Amino acid sequence: MAALLRGSRSLLQRSNNHVDLTIVSRSMASKTPVGFIGLGNMGTPMALNLLKGGYPIIATDVFPESGKQLQDHGAQILDTPAEVADKADRIITMLPSSPNVIEAYTGPNGVLRKVKKGSLLIDSSTIDPSVAKEMALASEKMGAVFMDAPVSGGVGAASLAKLTFMVGGPEEEFTAAKELLGCMGHNALYCGKVGAGQAAKICNNMLLAIGMIGTAETMNLGLRLGLDPKLLTQVLNMSSGRCWSSDTYNPVPGVMEGVPSANNYLGGFGTMLMAKDLGLAQSTATDTKTPIPLGSLAHQLYRTMCARGYANKDFSSIFQFLREEESQ
Amino acid sequence: MAALLRGSRSLLQRSNNHVDLTIVSRSMASKTPVGFIGLGNMGTPMALNLLKGGYPIIATDVFPESGKQLQDHGAQILDTPAEVADKADRIITMLPSSPNVIEAYTGPNGVLRKVKKGSLLIDSSTIDPSVAKEMALASEKMGAVFMDAPVSGGVGAASLAKLTFMVGGPEEEFTAAKELLGCMGHNALYCGKVGAGQAAKICNNMLLAIGMIGTAETMNLGLRLGLDPKLLTQVLNMSSGRCWSSDTYNPVPGVMEGVPSANNYLGGFGTMLMAKDLGLAQSTATDTKTPIPLGSLAHQLYRTMCARGYANKDFSSIFQFLREEESQ
Amino acid sequence: MAALLRGSRSLLQRSNNHVDLTIVSRSMASKTPVGFIGLGNMGTPMALNLLKGGYPIIATDVFPESGKQLQDHGAQILDTPAEVADKADRIITMLPSSPNVIEAYTGPNGVLRKVKKGSLLIDSSTIDPSVAKEMALASEKMGAVFMDAPVSGGVGAASLAKLTFMVGGPEEEFTAAKELLGCMGHNALYCGKVGAGQAAKICNNMLLAIGMIGTAETMNLGLRLGLDPKLLTQVLNMSSGRCWSSDTYNPVPGVMEGVPSANNYLGGFGTMLMAKDLGLAQSTATDTKTPIPLGSLAHQLYRTMCARGYANKDFSSIFQFLREEESQ
Amino acid sequence: MAALLRGSRSLLQRSNNHVDLTIVSRSMASKTPVGFIGLGNMGTPMALNLLKGGYPIIATDVFPESGKQLQDHGAQILDTPAEVADKADRIITMLPSSPNVIEAYTGPNGVLRKVKKGSLLIDSSTIDPSVAKEMALASEKMGAVFMDAPVSGGVGAASLAKLTFMVGGPEEEFTAAKELLGCMGHNALYCGKVGAGQAAKICNNMLLAIGMIGTAETMNLGLRLGLDPKLLTQVLNMSSGRCWSSDTYNPVPGVMEGVPSANNYLGGFGTMLMAKDLGLAQSTATDTKTPIPLGSLAHQLYRTMCARGYANKDFSSIFQFLREEESQ
Repeated sequence: MAALLRGSRSLLQRSNNHVDLTIVSRSMASKTPVGFIGLGNMGTPMALNLLKGGYPIIATDVFPESGKQLQDHGAQILDTPAEVADKADRIITMLPSSPNVIEAYTGPNGVLRKVKKGSLLIDSSTIDPSVAKEMALASEKMGAVFMDAPVSGGVGAASLAKLTFMVGGPEEEFTAAKELLGCMGHNALYCGKVGAGQAAKICNNMLLAIGMIGTAETMNLGLRLGLDPKLLTQVLNMSSGRCWSSDTYNPVPGVMEGVPSANNYLGGFGTMLMAKDLGLAQSTATDTKTPIPLGSLAHQLYRTMCARGYANKDFSSIFQFLREEESQ
Repeated sequence: MAALLRGSRSLLQRSNNHVDLTIVSRSMASKTPVGFIGLGNMGTPMALNLLKGGYPIIATDVFPESGKQLQDHGAQILDTPAEVADKADRIITMLPSSPNVIEAYTGPNGVLRKVKKGSLLIDSSTIDPSVAKEMALASEKMGAVFMDAPVSGGVGAASLAKLTFMVGGPEEEFTAAKELLGCMGHNALYCGKVGAGQAAKICNNMLLAIGMIGTAETMNLGLRLGLDPKLLTQVLNMSSGRCWSSDTYNPVPGVMEGVPSANNYLGGFGTMLMAKDLGLAQSTATDTKTPIPLGSLAHQLYRTMCARGYANKDFSSIFQFLREEESQ
Repeated sequence: MAALLRGSRSLLQRSNNHVDLTIVSRSMASKTPVGFIGLGNMGTPMALNLLKGGYPIIATDVFPESGKQLQDHGAQILDTPAEVADKADRIITMLPSSPNVIEAYTGPNGVLRKVKKGSLLIDSSTIDPSVAKEMALASEKMGAVFMDAPVSGGVGAASLAKLTFMVGGPEEEFTAAKELLGCMGHNALYCGKVGAGQAAKICNNMLLAIGMIGTAETMNLGLRLGLDPKLLTQVLNMSSGRCWSSDTYNPVPGVMEGVPSANNYLGGFGTMLMAKDLGLAQSTATDTKTPIPLGSLAHQLYRTMCARGYANKDFSSIFQFLREEESQ
Repeated sequence: MAALLRGSRSLLQRSNNHVDLTIVSRSMASKTPVGFIGLGNMGTPMALNLLKGGYPIIATDVFPESGKQLQDHGAQILDTPAEVADKADRIITMLPSSPNVIEAYTGPNGVLRKVKKGSLLIDSSTIDPSVAKEMALASEKMGAVFMDAPVSGGVGAASLAKLTFMVGGPEEEFTAAKELLGCMGHNALYCGKVGAGQAAKICNNMLLAIGMIGTAETMNLGLRLGLDPKLLTQVLNMSSGRCWSSDTYNPVPGVMEGVPSANNYLGGFGTMLMAKDLGLAQSTATDTKTPIPLGSLAHQLYRTMCARGYANKDFSSIFQFLREEESQ
């Protein structure tokens, strides 16, 4: 029924962009089941928050045991994305990387095998924008709408429903998407057509990596020059050196509470994940012939850190990586 | 008379660090003449603000004509730093680089040839911290106190008395220094012993350069990926990519008003000056064996820009430098 | 007939790898027509050398006028790769980049539409190794053998039949490939299974770019320190700094004759082409999670040069790019 | 007597540059004692080779025990450089870095306290060219001639008298210098006025570092792409990727015999020493405003390696540093 409404709404929208029935149909539809594919560290708390928001959840994961926690809270766990698509016309995917997304949508048991016409497919994975565009095209052929909505924020923000979503796709579907995203985060930014969410995410994370390495180098240099790290942090944050890594997520142990640097770089956002995102930035920059000298060097440094045992530490551990060992 | 007081105060201080007569003697002394050496684009408005604050100014510059404007406002212009030191026991220097500072203090007509015992010498140039330490040592031998107090902020901030000073030197002299610095800026941060002001300045500017190049790369990549620059700026500033260069001094024309990118990169902080500061960061990092991969690459990029005709454009013109030319 | 022989040989080979009929069948086949796809600056002289070697040529190019010169020498020019494949069972492709290769093989008028069973397809373009593997797989499905054989050497070497080929593909086909490659070059190196030729080419060019930029930086630094460039070149070449860019292709005008630096950086290997090859290196490194800090920075520098007007100059013009302009 | 001859020769030379008595006086002088300052891993075998060449040696080192081996071979060990200068009019210094050289020449017990007029002072340390110029100036004031003659080649080459010397200083003294250098090496290159030897050395080592890191990255990328390292080495060495690090000192274990990579990176030229030389390159580049993007990044990488436990491994261990650990 919801699917039918969505379908007829789309027809209406095409004839008259100014009459937007989305909200009406969505509010009627809103408590119908939502599909969720990908139940990892991020996906599970996101799906739980949708449950809390009153949405029945029909979910799946390649590792069946990943669905246990969600099942205990009342979600229905199925075997494949195709089965989920058969039962829900709004589906969210949260997967590790591009190949997983391609498989989940276009694989032999993928969403698109059984997707209902008019379905809304939201991918919150961080992947190559060009893959997002391919998925959108493939979805459109089946009569479904695909949006990319990667997140800013980690496991903590996912649990607290404080994620930020950067959304790409048809603007007229943004309201519909926000209805669901609003259960899982406190912010959804519309960035442009499909792939734009991924583009914005990649850009943000590249600048984040540069700022973090820059902050680590700067703090280390200051220490070597005899400055107190708390004082230097204060100076930077009052001056033009200020950035998120200096004022919110300082990489030097002892400067701030409640950040990974205060906890031996455990938790947070792993170096391996940052290296992956920088790989995406590198690839899109190469494809578009865009020079990114610092972004590229940041990528190489995080990649080198992965090779030297830092893969699972928070990415602020670059401070530790660059620092002379105590004993030398 | 002030000099005598200062001298006796110093003696007292040496015998008893807890009895600090500074404030008393300073308030008595406060309207005695202040020396000012270096009357360039920064020095002249700084000296004018001291004049406005009620301090008689005795000044000099290697280019005599540089003193004209100050003279018109009532300052006394002398020929050499030595002559200034003969007539004023508080002296501020604002010079282009380390060799000029060395010459102004220890040269044949330098301050130290005639400096009075107990004089307070404040250097606001941006120089190598090790040179600041050398000057402090040489000054101490003559019975004078040397402090480094480099500034954050450009010609505009100098004119409006809105500079920030990062101050290094004996902590017990900080109050005395602030009396004068307060006429020229709205902020003075005590950073530690002599050289610490320079160290903090260098650290800040290195991180600033990294943040600026990173922002330029990121914005350019976003544009190539089809994002609107204002929207991308908004996303970054709400997320972990946020930095001073993204939220206060955006390098992309059309994103912000009142910044050099809105004015063809005129005004602001020149690429050549940034290259100089990064050279100081590079040298101190080399001396202290500190790895600064991004800081070092930022240095090389600004140096290359100087070689390619960008020397006098604002340092945010890195956006233009990295961007594919329209015609290609 | 040759096709039949090749086909039956393949069957034989599969049953018994030790009985290799290649040489026998090839020598019978050797003067049958050879197909050539891609008649640009490289392809045309390569095809002419095959003509000189006695091979009838059946060729095509997306720009029909590109075939004129070859036609004047007796080659037959057809409209599409498919038509070429219909008439020749040995085909060489020499195209600008991966998408052109994909189109020429698997496009609607591509080679694989009409390829004869047992055909030998040799791609001398420089492309992503993973695309070479895809083409090999697609060719295998049609019963044809695909080999990658990118070249080292530019237009001059192509004209003089002095190219070096780096060859990937089934080892038992290497002899057959060498028969043709020997007409166009003086060296063919077997590098391993399909894609290995591209991998070797990409590796070589990455190290070449690093060596060239390194040489340019070093020579420029030496000049600034007062060294004579010829003398410095001599010192480097007798010492551990020696590399191809210092001893064979020196980037400093006046040091060597007959290289692009002696001719205002005209001719040679364009900066844009080097940037493209470095893009391939960057992408394969990203895909394989391999850190390439210098290779990546080299890529960014050549990409930046493209943005600053150096796209069509020889890649040794990095010396000019880094050097301070005379007037400054 | 030799000193007198040298002194009078200098006078003659000043009046008539065409009459050069150097050779005559030197051949008379040649078996007079030679001073040697700095008896470390390099200095000791160098001094031993002078002894073998028939020169009585008068030597010193800050660590008295360092002279033991030389003493056993008949050298006279004194306490200070000044005492050496008092007894020998040709002196060679081989010290770790600039501050040691400054101390050995201009310190309170330095050579220049007792140097004889006309003495020939040859410094084979690797130091900042500007320090070499300062030492030359100070020596000239005392009537002595200072030349810089840093070496290429390590402990092995020093033992075998196969060093290469890069020599800076007055050209008319080069013959005199070669007489001694010829006992310790097989090559002496005249590079220009004083400091030119250091400049050439620094330039060579910067390009060496770039070539080594580039080779390591390239070999690692090739391995990841499935190439055999020996084959890839062969391809590079036949192509434009060829460099000293690929064809003479390959960093990949198993490719070559008799190099540090075949011996767990023991022996050879330590990462810490390379970092030091790159620091000199960086400083001279900063001073002369020369952009060295790859040289600078090479410096940062070797500096980072020092911080991560590679300080005493051969500099070709960058291959190991960049490589993913087996277990990951």
